[in-house]
This record gives sequence, structure tokens and C-alpha cells, in this order.
Amino acid sequence: MTPLSMLRRLATRAAPQPGPIALVGAGPGAADLLTLRALRHLQQADVIFYDRLVDPAVLRLARPRAEKVFVGKEVGASDWPQARINAVIVAAALRGRRVVRLKSGDPGIFGRATEELEAARAAGIAVDIVPGITAASAACASLGRSLTERGQTDRLMLATATCRPGDPDPDWAGMLRPGTTLALYMGVRKVAAFTAGLRRAGVPMDLEVTIVSAASTAAERSTVTTLAALPAVMQAGGFPNPSIIFIRWSKQHRAAGAVLHLVGKAV
Amino acid sequence: MTPLSMLRRLATRAAPQPGPIALVGAGPGAADLLTLRALRHLQQADVIFYDRLVDPAVLRLARPRAEKVFVGKEVGASDWPQARINAVIVAAALRGRRVVRLKSGDPGIFGRATEELEAARAAGIAVDIVPGITAASAACASLGRSLTERGQTDRLMLATATCRPGDPDPDWAGMLRPGTTLALYMGVRKVAAFTAGLRRAGVPMDLEVTIVSAASTAAERSTVTTLAALPAVMQAGGFPNPSIIFIRWSKQHRAAGAVLHLVGKAV
Repeated sequence: MTPLSMLRRLATRAAPQPGPIALVGAGPGAADLLTLRALRHLQQADVIFYDRLVDPAVLRLARPRAEKVFVGKEVGASDWPQARINAVIVAAALRGRRVVRLKSGDPGIFGRATEELEAARAAGIAVDIVPGITAASAACASLGRSLTERGQTDRLMLATATCRPGDPDPDWAGMLRPGTTLALYMGVRKVAAFTAGLRRAGVPMDLEVTIVSAASTAAERSTVTTLAALPAVMQAGGFPNPSIIFIRWSKQHRAAGAVLHLVGKAV
Repeated sequence: MTPLSMLRRLATRAAPQPGPIALVGAGPGAADLLTLRALRHLQQADVIFYDRLVDPAVLRLARPRAEKVFVGKEVGASDWPQARINAVIVAAALRGRRVVRLKSGDPGIFGRATEELEAARAAGIAVDIVPGITAASAACASLGRSLTERGQTDRLMLATATCRPGDPDPDWAGMLRPGTTLALYMGVRKVAAFTAGLRRAGVPMDLEVTIVSAASTAAERSTVTTLAALPAVMQAGGFPNPSIIFIRWSKQHRAAGAVLHLVGKAV
């Protein structure tokens, strides 16, 4: 080995080429709802940082030699704050490793992808985003229904009930108008405020509500109720996170008037 | 062959067990954005009924012996009205064939899945829905952006500009409020009405607009503009269907006042 090539090797060791980062959607749970592109990333990764909600069956499809690091973000948990996750994925890439940041559902939908994108770009690292099947889509498919229905619900609203700590509650009333299917994410703990907000806005309390937990997994369960009864059903049912709450307000819906208003009030 | 077994065979021929129907999401275009489940259905199908927007690369992943039938639904085309599509998929299943109805994107999002589900169920045929990556999700991933951004856009509205023939125009104003990313599907021909409706509703005309055509395919292109300039850009640009029009109204956005209002009026 010549002195020059030794120097080159040392220089390479000292500052390896940064590895790429891919923010990969793991889909809603069922491993076969992964995309082919996501599978390829998992099979080429050196290290995979994954969330609490990623199904173990998805991880089993990854390259056996890949290191798998749990960055367990429970709702409200602070052991893996976002800044720490940003730091570890960037550090791994700077060591030249091919990094997969595996996020349940679609990284672009309530996945806090922007924070990880900005951290990676600030470090000069290229990032790919691989979209995934979001839970609302899988949940409705499991129910054998369409999220939109032509002439009845021509729009689909995906909203989260859980905003940034310190932020005011979301504008509940703005989530739902006639002709809309609302899929509310992370709403289990916010049902009382959410239902009250919709009632104040004059949303009919007899609208059909469907709650789906753990969509596409073996633990999936669903319940159909009305908006008026939703808080009571939720309290009784012990629905875990992640659950999706669907509310369908068809263009043809006519409020059933005073009787249902009373039912709404009784809850 | 015994007379009994001959009779059995004849009986089987006369009324075969109906085949299953799967409404399968083909994803936005790129073949590797297909899910593993969708791939399995394509590889087990006897017959595949597919739309204009399904990429040929997706069809090449199907079982070679599967019959592929184009049921080319262009926007506004009437050669394959929905009722005819319903009839042919049901007839194929009743002949005992395993039917895949391959729909671009996600069958549950603007896919008219309900009409096909109802036709199949009326004939007593079981239907599976296999969710797919919808175009908005793929388009935003291609741009390297998130559809929602925590603390800025906490909700995502997917809306279509093209409703049932004879229906009034959609409630444009209800599509967009602060804190929302709007992804408008099938909007290319409706941009003038849409922009005017938002302006009447007081939506700031300086909001950022991104148009993405043919997301995830080799022909993908995107343009960034403002809501005020959108009609002119659209008219000049010749954006084909399918294009997604994204409008982002962050919670932090402050209308830039009179000057931008004038710009809005000038278009």
C-alpha cells in the first residue's frame, strides 16, 4: 500500500460518504400492505428506526443483518422526543449507514416527517419519502366500504385530534360539513371535546359514526354508533390507540330534528 | 367415468361457484408503489379489468395467463359507463373466474367503489377491497414534503372538483380553512370556478399552490405558484389529467392585504 492510498483510506474512514435516509411508510399494520418499494428499502437497510405502531411482521421482512432500533413514540411519551429521533437518524447516516426511518401508516400524514426531513437536510443528507397506506384507507377497506361515495360524500377529511402541546384544540367545526367523510386520527382521548364542538356548530347528532381500532391487524375491531352516542360508546368500549373515528355526513342527510337533538343532549 | 361423476361434472359446469371479486388499488403509477397484497391478487387473477390511468408496468406484474380487459374510463367518456363495468365484472365472477378490478390510486378514494360493491353484493358475490397509495400521497412524497405539518397544517382535505353530472359545483369554500392542506383531484378543468369560489370566501390569494401531474411516473412534473396566479398558470401550462392541485393554508399564514388582493383581482 502506497502512502497516498493509505492517506486516502484514512480520509475515507474519518469522513465516510453519508448514507441515504428513507422515511418509509410501514402501512397500517398488516405486513402485506407494505409497498414493493418499502420492502426494497427494508431489505437494503443497515439500520431501521421504528415506532411503537409498526407491526413486528413488517420488521421480519427486513434484511436480517439490519440493526433494528425501537424509538418508541407513544402518544405523550417523552423518552424518545422528536429531537432525539432526528439526532440519531442523522448520526447514523453520517456514519455512512443506509438508514430507514420506518413510520406506521404514511410518513406524510400525521407522521412528523417535516421535522426529520429538515434535520437531515440541514446535515446535507439526501432523503427519500416512500408513501404508505394510511390507517383510514385500510380501515375502510376492511369494512368493505369506500371512503368517498359519489354524489353523497365527495370529500375526505383526515384530521388529528391531538395537536402540538400548548396549541389550542383544533377547530372541530371546520372538520365536517355536508358531503364529507371525516376520518379522525388520535381522537380517543378527545371525544368529549370533539363531540361537543361539533354539536355547538350545529352538526346533526344522528350522523353515523364508525370506530375502527388496529385496522388491518388480527386485533382489528369496529363499532357503529351515532355522533350523539359516541362519547358514551367510547368510554364504555375501551378503544385503544390507534383508532380511527369515521363520521359520514352525506349531502342527502336531513337532521332528524328535536328528538335527536334531545338524544344528543342526554349524552 | 361413472354416471354419477358425469352428472356431478355437468352440474358443476352449469352453475359454477362464483369467483371472488377484488377491488384492487393500483397505486398512483409507479409499479413499485403497489402493495404486496395487490401483487398477490394480480398474480392469482383469471381476469383483470383496468382503467385508463393504470400504468402498463403494473399490468406486467400480473399473472401472464390472466385476461386483461381495458374498461377505459376517461373523464366524461361514456363508452364504458359505470353500469356496464358493474355488469361485466359481475358476469365474469358468476362464470367462476377470479376477478380483479384494478383501479388507479386507492379504490376507496374517488374510485366509485360503492357502485361496484353494490352490484357484486346484489349478485351474492364476495368482494375484497385492497387499498392503494392515493395520488396525493405519492405526489407529496415525490416533492420531498409531508402532506401535514405539525402545528401548521393539522388536517388534510382530499376533494374532487368533478362531481356527478347535473350536481351543483362543490362547496369550494368549505374545502379550505386555516391549518389545512387541500389536495384537489380532477380539478384541471375547474380551476377558474374553484379559484373564484375560494376568493369569494375570503381565502388569501397569496397561498402557495403546487400542481403535480402524473405523480410517481416518468412523466411527473410539478409547478409552484400562488392561488391568485393558478388560473393563468393552469391555462398556460397544459397540465393533463390526472393532476393534483395542492393548496397549503398554514395556521401561521397572515394575508398580505391589499396588494395581494389586487394581484388576485388582476388574474
